[in-house]
Amino acid sequence: MHSPVTKVTGFIALMIVQIILLALFWLFVRYSDGALPSDEGRGLGEEHVSKYPHFQDVQVMIYIGFGFLMTFLRKYGYSATGYTLFLAALVVQWSILVKGFFHMEDGKISLSLESIVDADIAAAVPLISMGALLGRTTPIQLLFMAIVEIVLFAANEYVALNIFSICDVGGSITVHAFGAYFGLAVSLMLRPGKEQNEAGKYEGANYTSDIFAMVGTLFLYVYWPSFNSVLADGSGQERAILNTYLSLAAATVTTFIVSALVSHENKLDMVHVQNSTLAGGVAIGTVCNLLVGSHGAILIGIIAGCISVLGYRYLSPRITDVLGIHDTCGVHNLHGMPALISAIASAIFANLVTKEKYKSELEQIFPAMAGAPENSSSTIILGGYERTASAQAGYQLCGIAVTLLVAIVGGILTGVVLKYTGMRKLQKHEHHQDELHWEVPEHKDD
Amino acid sequence: MHSPVTKVTGFIALMIVQIILLALFWLFVRYSDGALPSDEGRGLGEEHVSKYPHFQDVQVMIYIGFGFLMTFLRKYGYSATGYTLFLAALVVQWSILVKGFFHMEDGKISLSLESIVDADIAAAVPLISMGALLGRTTPIQLLFMAIVEIVLFAANEYVALNIFSICDVGGSITVHAFGAYFGLAVSLMLRPGKEQNEAGKYEGANYTSDIFAMVGTLFLYVYWPSFNSVLADGSGQERAILNTYLSLAAATVTTFIVSALVSHENKLDMVHVQNSTLAGGVAIGTVCNLLVGSHGAILIGIIAGCISVLGYRYLSPRITDVLGIHDTCGVHNLHGMPALISAIASAIFANLVTKEKYKSELEQIFPAMAGAPENSSSTIILGGYERTASAQAGYQLCGIAVTLLVAIVGGILTGVVLKYTGMRKLQKHEHHQDELHWEVPEHKDD
Amino acid sequence: MHSPVTKVTGFIALMIVQIILLALFWLFVRYSDGALPSDEGRGLGEEHVSKYPHFQDVQVMIYIGFGFLMTFLRKYGYSATGYTLFLAALVVQWSILVKGFFHMEDGKISLSLESIVDADIAAAVPLISMGALLGRTTPIQLLFMAIVEIVLFAANEYVALNIFSICDVGGSITVHAFGAYFGLAVSLMLRPGKEQNEAGKYEGANYTSDIFAMVGTLFLYVYWPSFNSVLADGSGQERAILNTYLSLAAATVTTFIVSALVSHENKLDMVHVQNSTLAGGVAIGTVCNLLVGSHGAILIGIIAGCISVLGYRYLSPRITDVLGIHDTCGVHNLHGMPALISAIASAIFANLVTKEKYKSELEQIFPAMAGAPENSSSTIILGGYERTASAQAGYQLCGIAVTLLVAIVGGILTGVVLKYTGMRKLQKHEHHQDELHWEVPEHKDD
Repeated sequence: MHSPVTKVTGFIALMIVQIILLALFWLFVRYSDGALPSDEGRGLGEEHVSKYPHFQDVQVMIYIGFGFLMTFLRKYGYSATGYTLFLAALVVQWSILVKGFFHMEDGKISLSLESIVDADIAAAVPLISMGALLGRTTPIQLLFMAIVEIVLFAANEYVALNIFSICDVGGSITVHAFGAYFGLAVSLMLRPGKEQNEAGKYEGANYTSDIFAMVGTLFLYVYWPSFNSVLADGSGQERAILNTYLSLAAATVTTFIVSALVSHENKLDMVHVQNSTLAGGVAIGTVCNLLVGSHGAILIGIIAGCISVLGYRYLSPRITDVLGIHDTCGVHNLHGMPALISAIASAIFANLVTKEKYKSELEQIFPAMAGAPENSSSTIILGGYERTASAQAGYQLCGIAVTLLVAIVGGILTGVVLKYTGMRKLQKHEHHQDELHWEVPEHKDD
Repeated sequence: MHSPVTKVTGFIALMIVQIILLALFWLFVRYSDGALPSDEGRGLGEEHVSKYPHFQDVQVMIYIGFGFLMTFLRKYGYSATGYTLFLAALVVQWSILVKGFFHMEDGKISLSLESIVDADIAAAVPLISMGALLGRTTPIQLLFMAIVEIVLFAANEYVALNIFSICDVGGSITVHAFGAYFGLAVSLMLRPGKEQNEAGKYEGANYTSDIFAMVGTLFLYVYWPSFNSVLADGSGQERAILNTYLSLAAATVTTFIVSALVSHENKLDMVHVQNSTLAGGVAIGTVCNLLVGSHGAILIGIIAGCISVLGYRYLSPRITDVLGIHDTCGVHNLHGMPALISAIASAIFANLVTKEKYKSELEQIFPAMAGAPENSSSTIILGGYERTASAQAGYQLCGIAVTLLVAIVGGILTGVVLKYTGMRKLQKHEHHQDELHWEVPEHKDD
Repeated sequence: MHSPVTKVTGFIALMIVQIILLALFWLFVRYSDGALPSDEGRGLGEEHVSKYPHFQDVQVMIYIGFGFLMTFLRKYGYSATGYTLFLAALVVQWSILVKGFFHMEDGKISLSLESIVDADIAAAVPLISMGALLGRTTPIQLLFMAIVEIVLFAANEYVALNIFSICDVGGSITVHAFGAYFGLAVSLMLRPGKEQNEAGKYEGANYTSDIFAMVGTLFLYVYWPSFNSVLADGSGQERAILNTYLSLAAATVTTFIVSALVSHENKLDMVHVQNSTLAGGVAIGTVCNLLVGSHGAILIGIIAGCISVLGYRYLSPRITDVLGIHDTCGVHNLHGMPALISAIASAIFANLVTKEKYKSELEQIFPAMAGAPENSSSTIILGGYERTASAQAGYQLCGIAVTLLVAIVGGILTGVVLKYTGMRKLQKHEHHQDELHWEVPEHKDD
């Protein structure tokens, strides 16, 4: 039995966090010019018209997609949907501030549609990490982790995009790889003692919970082209949509086939169907606006689906055995490895870039390969402008390497804090069940 | 046992209603000019491109959001989703006509994308009222209520927007307050005898029904910025999106915290998570396109989440005890009180309005504060043009006062008709279960 | 017991199919000009901004709408959602190629947003057919059927739209009628022996599965206006939205009423609510961009809802008795008959077309009724240009006639192959259950 007092303290601390957020918005955040009345009575910006539908799709992915994908645990559905909502609602406020601090003007953060698009994307990062820990932390631990993680994520993203100047329009490096390896590192630190390494009593699906999880899968599948293309511009936005669409389709077909081939009695496994089908969206992420060709997108999808299913079937059990990491949702197979594929693909395709092929879009997609813009004083691109294609390829690899480093070291340190400070921790028998933190109705499903 | 004959009569009456609707459309409704072929072969209007995605989001809120939010009752899921669909499908047709009668030109009602946006928003009104009655009426009673309610809603909205000239872009006053207090007034009239005041046998959730309800909650959450901004224009539309987004996030964080603090054993309560998280969307509604600032939006969200949870925990049981009102979904806590907060906030922020701050948008947002437009003959704004800020604030308060009056008196009269005319009423033991009106499969969930 | 070897062979064959698709994309498919960088750095095309939100709505319909609509079977939810995803993911790739072969330029297929809109619409065709077979085929049989069906669908669509030059913007003739009657013809060939004609042991819903099916119904309902309008242009797009919206609403009201009137004890039947409510979307499809008037749309909806419910109640049992066709989802009542209504309506409204009413949109909507365009060498419109209204009406009827012919003959031949070749077939006791092809968790829903 743990004392309600600890819980109360935790929740009061959170209320203070929310009030601090309020104060920080008061002090630092202002509507952008486009969101303020003007003398001309301008209409909606073009950005608004072209990006708002994408934004709403991303919202669905964060709240419904992630939330329901994690309802597959049969006694953890309140937590899956509830904590996703709680964590995302806190993180979007925090990330507007954190990301804003990197781009302040006159000491103020400018708030626009772009800010909340960025905030939703940032919310994906701790939600991915949560997948590696699902059912084995308290909500207070999750929220603490998320608050720390967003700071490291924003710093790493700044380094990767603004200093290394890598391309990563769909966020496979900065969002998916970061979130997955950070979560795995936290999971490593929170691993149970050797004697408790078997699966938890409630660590599994039932028929209904598996179908709820498909709500998550299918919305993530359907809207993934919007996630990958929301930050792309010009014709790159259309390529991002087309390539993501094809990569997902190819990964899905491959997932079903490989799942049937490697599973017990050649039956399909819902874990693969719920997750590996989406690996195509991650694996194409970094390169989705490049000239990869429709066949390139399909090839990446096939590889991603294949590796993801094999990861679930063969690699994950080994990781649990050897390292003691319980990756509840298998984020290593859905986000981790496919993001590595995307990073490698980005080095390959960056190496093929020429000014002739990318024309006026070179500057947008690979700013360091174009000439220096007129007022470039504020940007600090490593190695200066007019990078060669092979140099860009090298920076892409540096980008993923630094991301892995920051995520793993950051995750380990965060895990140490979660484990060795006074925060309440769950015991093995408390894992993967809502009852500890939720009022659960007595009546059975009758 | 009630006789099928009564049911048959009711359904035949409804078929006649549908045929009358057909006739009225034939007589009065015509495509707007924009929806007719022209000689120039014009493309899509700008309105279409910028509003259609918002419209579709609102559609999801009405049919999936409201429908699934009400599936939390464990034996009333067919009715929750089915009656929502039935009622909305009838009401959208009826409200195009009723709202159209207030704005006829040459005896005809003009049909455009705007009409169906308005129709969807109007459909929210009886769906909110339905929440206060859920499980305690027949479908025929619900539909009768909706038909009457739409007329009163449209009249009240006309008075509030066109005569009092209040601002209410997100409809918190005209839609949420009206729907909630109308429903509560009907519920008051249909209250059971004293001896039957305890909760119904089936008035509760089970594990699966609670997760279905989260489908509703999350879609309402995600698309609420579209609901609040669909009628806004210019930079006000972007502010409506940003403020709603932040208010919802802050209300959500607050809901979880307060729920844990006030609930039994400090456990989270799904009723709060499903409903109070959305109170931020209602509370920001009337003011979402004003210059409330991001901190203003967050503050309103915090207050709304807090009051809504406290309402569920402490006020609702008192209302049931004292007045006998069974507010099944707690619409008073999700729609009623947050709408009052929004109305009060609108008086406060209207009082701060200056021509300098709102520039060319003053005329759009507060037409009565701007100079009279050139052909203003058709509008009858109370007190004429060039209102002061404090006068506008006063009118905002008049707007909510009149809305409450019309809703409560209208609801009581409607309740009287539902109770004392020949319409079949449900007995206590028939409450909150589908079996009375639906073919329910025999096999258990196996 | 069937041998895993057969399954393995089937899945390896599918992997080869996916690799062939990869090769064909490599050889034949190229980004369209709009999806390639240009010197001017053009922004997003207008098409993109106006069509992408419609496209995403259609995606939801295909993957979530169809997938969940079919989860009503209580032991077939994994297959319903899973096979929908699998089949759609394969079909979209295949249909980009097949439809592309009809419109190649310089031996290459051009890939754009339009291609994937078309691919999603094409995916609806085998998914409709799947509804007529649900639970009675292996996934390999389904995929074989889909691959053949797409070829026939594309050929028939080419004939109907480009040679007969019929109007069919919402695809009721080319998509819904084709998919339904093709599936029914396959179902006819796969009918069980006489002694096995009773319903399968698991051919029914339970309480939870019925509510999951409502997720499908409601998303199809909400986004149907996007499906019908995604290929429309100019003011026709707005009419398509308005008419579909009204037809669906009228069909829904009618469905509830007629369901209550004809069902046992006058109770509502979830089968009707889940399906017949959508018949209004199909029945308005072919004519939704015409000048049918809002009353025309409502009338079509009333007729469709009525016929669809009566079909479920009286016609489907007869078809099973007489022809032995088990139409699991009742696609004849949701897609088949309403599509016939739409075809007949299209002949009636085509007969009323005048140049005066349609102005500059005549050429878009009825190209064969306008003068020949300047470079019309590539099109082969039957009977040449400047068709009369009554000739157009005749061609509309030819369009549906040829569609029925191709669908039924094609379906029978496909059924013959599925039945008499070596492909594994399901036995009666294997019907309508996931366990045969899926790992199903042991624990009950507890």
